[in-house]
Amino acid sequence: MARINDNYLKLKAGYLFPEIGRRVKAFAQEHPEAKIIRLGIGDVTQPLPPAVLEAFHAAVDDLGRKETFHGYGPEQGYPFLIETLIEKVYKPLGVTLNGGEIFISDGAKCDTANILDILALDNRVALGDPVYPVYNDTNVMIGRSGEADEKGYYQGLIYMPCLEENGFLPDLPSERADIIYLCFPNNPTGAVASREVLKKWVDFALQTDALLFFDAAYEAYITDPAIPHSIYEIPGAEHCALEFRSFSKTAGFTGVRCAFTVIPDGVMARTAKGEKIPLNKLWNRRQSTKFNGVSYPVQRAAAAVYSPEGWKQTREIIAYYMENARIIRSGLGKAGFTVYGGVNAPYLWMKTPANLSSWEFFDKLLAGCHVVGTPGSGFGPSGEGFFRLSAFGDRADAEEAVSRIIKYNKW
Amino acid sequence: MARINDNYLKLKAGYLFPEIGRRVKAFAQEHPEAKIIRLGIGDVTQPLPPAVLEAFHAAVDDLGRKETFHGYGPEQGYPFLIETLIEKVYKPLGVTLNGGEIFISDGAKCDTANILDILALDNRVALGDPVYPVYNDTNVMIGRSGEADEKGYYQGLIYMPCLEENGFLPDLPSERADIIYLCFPNNPTGAVASREVLKKWVDFALQTDALLFFDAAYEAYITDPAIPHSIYEIPGAEHCALEFRSFSKTAGFTGVRCAFTVIPDGVMARTAKGEKIPLNKLWNRRQSTKFNGVSYPVQRAAAAVYSPEGWKQTREIIAYYMENARIIRSGLGKAGFTVYGGVNAPYLWMKTPANLSSWEFFDKLLAGCHVVGTPGSGFGPSGEGFFRLSAFGDRADAEEAVSRIIKYNKW
Repeated sequence: MARINDNYLKLKAGYLFPEIGRRVKAFAQEHPEAKIIRLGIGDVTQPLPPAVLEAFHAAVDDLGRKETFHGYGPEQGYPFLIETLIEKVYKPLGVTLNGGEIFISDGAKCDTANILDILALDNRVALGDPVYPVYNDTNVMIGRSGEADEKGYYQGLIYMPCLEENGFLPDLPSERADIIYLCFPNNPTGAVASREVLKKWVDFALQTDALLFFDAAYEAYITDPAIPHSIYEIPGAEHCALEFRSFSKTAGFTGVRCAFTVIPDGVMARTAKGEKIPLNKLWNRRQSTKFNGVSYPVQRAAAAVYSPEGWKQTREIIAYYMENARIIRSGLGKAGFTVYGGVNAPYLWMKTPANLSSWEFFDKLLAGCHVVGTPGSGFGPSGEGFFRLSAFGDRADAEEAVSRIIKYNKW
Repeated sequence: MARINDNYLKLKAGYLFPEIGRRVKAFAQEHPEAKIIRLGIGDVTQPLPPAVLEAFHAAVDDLGRKETFHGYGPEQGYPFLIETLIEKVYKPLGVTLNGGEIFISDGAKCDTANILDILALDNRVALGDPVYPVYNDTNVMIGRSGEADEKGYYQGLIYMPCLEENGFLPDLPSERADIIYLCFPNNPTGAVASREVLKKWVDFALQTDALLFFDAAYEAYITDPAIPHSIYEIPGAEHCALEFRSFSKTAGFTGVRCAFTVIPDGVMARTAKGEKIPLNKLWNRRQSTKFNGVSYPVQRAAAAVYSPEGWKQTREIIAYYMENARIIRSGLGKAGFTVYGGVNAPYLWMKTPANLSSWEFFDKLLAGCHVVGTPGSGFGPSGEGFFRLSAFGDRADAEEAVSRIIKYNKW
C-alpha cells in the first residue's frame, strides 16, 4: 500500500478559522436574533474597481474571438503584466528589475508554500511568533521540523517572538538561520518596518549568508512615505531576498487570484557540493514543470489596477478600509483599550482587557457584543493575550462594533 | 548559505518544447517566406463557447457589486461547480460521488505534480514510456529517483514501455509498484483503454495494494460508447484510484485554468506505523494550506460548460477537432504512413518513415514541408521513431499540412 508523507501527521488538528466558525455558528443558533458583526475576517468586502472590471470583461471577450483567443500563456506570466509591475510598482521606488525576475502566480499563499520545493530540507528556518500559519505549517508538511511541543512550537524551527516589549519587531535570531521569513506590514500584528529595521535584516542576511523571504502582501496600506514598500529599497537585498506580493488585499483580488514573486538574478543558494546556483533558475524550472500560468483575463484585470483610472479607484478603496482602521483604533483607544497596528496596515492588534486569554476574550466579545474577531493565540503562542481585528469590513459595521465594545463593561 | 533541493540538478537540461521552438525559430529566420504550419502543439485554438463567455461575464459583473461580491472562496472549490460535476459528469456514467471527493484546481498539471506532496518518498512509482513529462520530472524533483542513465531513464522509477507491439498499452509491472500512473486517452500516443483493460489495472491495483493515478484530461474526445470516460466506471476503483480531470481540452480552458481531482473517501494509504489514512483528508489539508482556490469567475465559466447550451457548443468544438484528427489520420494513412491514435483521442502517433529518428523526421518535416510536430523521443526513450501530431489546429491547416506531407517524397 502506498505510504503517506508522515510529516502531515505532525500538524495539530484544530485549525484557527474552522474553530472560530464552529463557535460563531453555535452562538448564532442559540441567539438567532443577534446581529453578529465580523471584524476578524482577513478578506476584502468592497467590489472591484470599475477600470479593473472593464479590462476583465475585455479579456473575456478576447477569448470569444479566434483572432484574440489566448490558450496556454507563459508559466511565468504575460510580459504585459510583468512590464507593468516593473514600471508602475518598482520603478517609482527606485528599484530596477528585469522581466525574468518576476513570476506571476495565483496567490502569495501558494508561492510562499511552494517556494520550499526548491530548497533542501536541512536548511534552518526562522519565523515570527505570532505568524501567518502557512509559513509554519508548510515547513512542517515538507519535513523540516520535528513534532510540536505542548505550546505549539515545532522542533527544529526557530521562532522569533514579536512582543509588546520589542514593538512586535523580532530580534535577530541568535541561532544560525538559513532562511528567515519577514512580513511587513505584518499579519497578524499590523507592525511595520522602517528603513532602518529592514536595513538591519538585509545587513544581517548578507553577513550570515541567510536568505530572506519578504512577504509584502499588505504594502498597499502604507501611507507614511518614510516606510519602504519593497525590501529591494534596501541596498543589498537583491542578493539575499525574495519578495512575495499579491493583488488580493491591494485590489480586492481575494476571489480573483493573482499574485507575484520576485527572485532577483543575484540571489544564490548552494548545492550539496558547494556550488552557487541562482534561485531564479530553480524557481523557473519548478513553475514550468508544476504550474501552468495564471488565467489570461485575470492577468489583464491585474494589469488594469495600474492604469491611471484603475490606480485612482484602487487607492480610494484602500483609503476606505484605512478609515475603518482609524475608527476602530481611535474608538477603542479612547475607551482605554490598548490597540497596536492599524496605521500603515489593515490589521489591528488589540491587547485583551482584564488579562483575558485570547479565546476567553473571543467568547466574551461574541456573547456580550456579538462581535467576532480572531484570537491572537491562533497565530502562535506569543499571540496569547492579543486579538486581531481587521479593517476590511463595512464602515457602518466598524462603527457599530466599536460602539458596542465601548458600551460593554463586564470584561 | 541556504541549500537548494539538489534533486533539481538531476533533471536533464534540454526540455522538449524549448528545443522545438529554437529549431523552428532558426528555420523561420532563414526562410522568412515559408508558411509554417504547427501540427504538434498541444494547445487549443478555437474560441470559448458563447454560453461559457456569458457566464464568465456575469460572474465578473458579480465582482463589481457589493451584494454579489465574492472574496476568498473555498479552497476545495465552490459547491455550485462541484455539484454540477457530480450531476452532469459522473451521474450519467453511473458513478456516485459526494461533494467532498472533488477538488477544483487551476490545472491538472498542478494537481498531478502537487499530489506527490502527500506521499512518502519511498513509494515505488511506475509510469508509461513515452509519457507526459510532468509525471516523470516531478518525481525526480521531489527526490524519488536517482540520476538519469544515458537513455534518459531515472534510477528508481519503473518505466512501462508503450510500444507498437503492445498496442501502446503498457503491461502490468513485474516489480512491486506502490503508485501507477495511467493516462487514457493517452498523451502522447492517443491510445485508449477499453473497459477490459481498465478492469485489469483496477484488479491489479486492488490485488497488489497499489494506488492508481488516472489522468483523464482527454476523456471528452471519446466518442465510442464502449470506452469508459472515468476509472470509476470500473468497480473497485473507488478504493484504489485518484482521477485527474481538466477543462483545458474539454472546453478550451488552457488559458482560463480550471481542472479538478477526484479522491474518493475509500482510497487509503498507510502511515509509517501501518495505520490506514484516507488520502482525501491529506489532500484537503494540503490544498487548504498551500492553495487558495480557483478564481470565482473561472469556476462560473466552468460550470456553464455543462449547461444545455454550453454542452452543445462544447461538443461542436470537440467534433471540429476530431474531424481534423480524421483528416490527418486518413490522409496520411492513404499515403502509406502508419498512424495510430486520433480516434477517441486528439493526438495522433505517427511512425516515422524510412526508419528516421524522431528528430531527423522533425527536421525533414520542417525543412521539406514547413510543418512542425513533436518528436516522440521527447516523451521518453520508447517514443523514438514516433512523432506526435495534434488535432487542435485549424481545419485549413490540417488539410494543407496533410497535402504537403503526402506530396513530399524524399524521406
